[in-house]
Amino acid sequence: MERTTNFNAGPAALPLEVLQKAQKEFIDFNESGMSVMELSHRSKEYEAVHQKAKSLLIELMGIPEDYDILFLQGGASLQFSMLPMNFLTPEKTAHFVMTGAWSEKALAETKLFGNTSITATSETDNYSYIPEVDLTDVKDGAYLHITSNNTIFGTQWQEFPNSPIPLVADMSSDILSRKIDVSKFDVIYGGAQKNLGPSGVTVVIMKKSWLQNENANVPKILKYSTHVKADSLYNTPPTFAIYMLSLVLEWLKENGGVEAVEQRNEQKAQVLYSCIDESNGFYKGHARKDSRSRMNVTFTLRDDELTKTFVQKAKDAKMIGLGGHRSVGGCRASIYNAVSLEDCEKLAAFMKKFQQENE
Amino acid sequence: MERTTNFNAGPAALPLEVLQKAQKEFIDFNESGMSVMELSHRSKEYEAVHQKAKSLLIELMGIPEDYDILFLQGGASLQFSMLPMNFLTPEKTAHFVMTGAWSEKALAETKLFGNTSITATSETDNYSYIPEVDLTDVKDGAYLHITSNNTIFGTQWQEFPNSPIPLVADMSSDILSRKIDVSKFDVIYGGAQKNLGPSGVTVVIMKKSWLQNENANVPKILKYSTHVKADSLYNTPPTFAIYMLSLVLEWLKENGGVEAVEQRNEQKAQVLYSCIDESNGFYKGHARKDSRSRMNVTFTLRDDELTKTFVQKAKDAKMIGLGGHRSVGGCRASIYNAVSLEDCEKLAAFMKKFQQENE
Ligand SMILES: Cc1ncc(COP(=O)(O)O)c(C=O)c1O
Ligand SMILES: Cc1ncc(COP(=O)(O)O)c(C=O)c1O
Ligand SMILES: [Mg+2]
Ligand SMILES: [Mg+2]
Ligand SMILES: [Mg+2]
Ligand SMILES: [Mg+2]
Repeated sequence: MERTTNFNAGPAALPLEVLQKAQKEFIDFNESGMSVMELSHRSKEYEAVHQKAKSLLIELMGIPEDYDILFLQGGASLQFSMLPMNFLTPEKTAHFVMTGAWSEKALAETKLFGNTSITATSETDNYSYIPEVDLTDVKDGAYLHITSNNTIFGTQWQEFPNSPIPLVADMSSDILSRKIDVSKFDVIYGGAQKNLGPSGVTVVIMKKSWLQNENANVPKILKYSTHVKADSLYNTPPTFAIYMLSLVLEWLKENGGVEAVEQRNEQKAQVLYSCIDESNGFYKGHARKDSRSRMNVTFTLRDDELTKTFVQKAKDAKMIGLGGHRSVGGCRASIYNAVSLEDCEKLAAFMKKFQQENE
Repeated sequence: MERTTNFNAGPAALPLEVLQKAQKEFIDFNESGMSVMELSHRSKEYEAVHQKAKSLLIELMGIPEDYDILFLQGGASLQFSMLPMNFLTPEKTAHFVMTGAWSEKALAETKLFGNTSITATSETDNYSYIPEVDLTDVKDGAYLHITSNNTIFGTQWQEFPNSPIPLVADMSSDILSRKIDVSKFDVIYGGAQKNLGPSGVTVVIMKKSWLQNENANVPKILKYSTHVKADSLYNTPPTFAIYMLSLVLEWLKENGGVEAVEQRNEQKAQVLYSCIDESNGFYKGHARKDSRSRMNVTFTLRDDELTKTFVQKAKDAKMIGLGGHRSVGGCRASIYNAVSLEDCEKLAAFMKKFQQENE
């Protein structure tokens, strides 16, 4: 088998070693005579998987003791609703920094539950940068919502704001890709399907003290406290997805943890951005340089025709997932943790050759 | 490897052939050079998996054309809320037939959204039977909710009521285990983790015309119409769980479909119930005979001590998952589609031997 080089935006590439381990024990997990997915979620064997995923996440991210960690279903998209449903109150406002399509979706769901306000936005520039934020007016808001990495536009917060109100971050597309100070946030959430594992499980990291603000009259299944009390076992969790998450976290730890992966991610992104910057405009980066994402590298080519050829030729060379999102056009290379430096070098070499052939 | 005989209530046994196929193509799906879980949910390769699961479900269950099929996250437990959130209105009442703990949870979530009424219940007899239903008073209700199979108590509807109002059924623990007339129902839903696949995906089958009753002001992610319009691809679906579902459905088809599995399930249940009935009271069935489940066989032994010994000795003999739920006590053998007649015969032989040794 020749392995495809996978630049998908999510679900995305997983480490080959992780897939191999999961394959090996797929039918007989830990000599149980069963697959992980056949274990009861109330069994000792599964409990160990669940706790391993949790404790590795705590260790790798440096999550302080006063935070809860939840494994939920519904994707980051369900968090867009669960957050205001539980934490927006009539007398308060949810503040948003708008940095892309995912911020927009989060905002739209929040509007159903109460007052919202846009603190800053780069919408008029097609979300090509992370805007400056002035937090003078948000003093008594319910929370400030940001999207740490903008998967579609290829921008990323370089530094997080010191928010006077609880800071909530959708980190779906850059969680565990770099060191962050968790204590700055009241809530961090993200779908697993970029840096953490397969789709089907959503990680939520929530400050314990914040849970006290939870609204009444929320359905039990949609209350955070329900899942906190039950340690994410209130109803049947997506056990296999959590198992895969545990393997990915183990792999990350074995490969030097967040510090090492952050360095690799810097290098990887550098290889591609250099290629863009040195192309004399053949490739145009969408993101403003000071806002560039190390996870999603977005760039456009001369026209649609050439873009199509680029994507097709890359595919012929066994590199997939390079078509950009329609709201930006052009191309996007998603280079999450499981994409290697060699993968990025392969793409950069291809890009240089393609430029020579088509300039 | 010796395979464990798995009587788990869910997540539960999966067909060995399905696990073997998934294992074989785990890292290289369809010569894509990628795992299924690395495919974009917008790719042609994944689209084929998604559509295969849907069309096999339509074929196997005989789902009429005027129904939509959804693959959602959140478990059956999220359906307990989504249903009233979308379909209960202030002027109407949701009616419930109470047959166990899951009916209770469904009812509790519904109360948050409007008026409810209990049409019939067997609660005072610890849910040991399916009560008679008199539907004279439910003429203008929003819907009638039933739980087709009661996982914990081991009872099952033998025949479904002709409801004058839309009939909604939680079929989590017996979907695809027997022939049903889908056209009797407006909604059928169930988590996959018993008869359909691993946990992490919930199947919803909904009459198209009923969708017109959907309430306004429901979060987009929690609206059925959102998922219908997007063919369950509004946000990232649990792609690997849906893939496993497609393999389980394929296996069921290759093994004679629902008609054949229904016969096998009758035989399997018969083997265990005979053993109980011929034990001279050593094993006592919890369910009244006319309400017995073919999926979950519940029985008690003389005392807790003996029950513990039974479960432990069964485990020593490589049969797991036999501890009953605390609300019934005793034992429970869950014998979903993937549990074979031989597995049930093995358990019955063990039960007879255990009786001889402990009478
Ligand atoms: C930043 C961001 N937020 C939210 C989502 C939505 O996640 P999900 O599909 O799991 O609901 C995505 C998906 O790509 C994303 O990139
Ligand atoms: C009949 C029935 N309904 C609902 C549920 C809850 O399903 P989930 O855990 O997927 O939310 C179960 C789980 O065992 C069940 O047996
Ligand atoms: Mg998800
Ligand atoms: Mg975006
Ligand atoms: Mg589920
Ligand atoms: Mg029950």
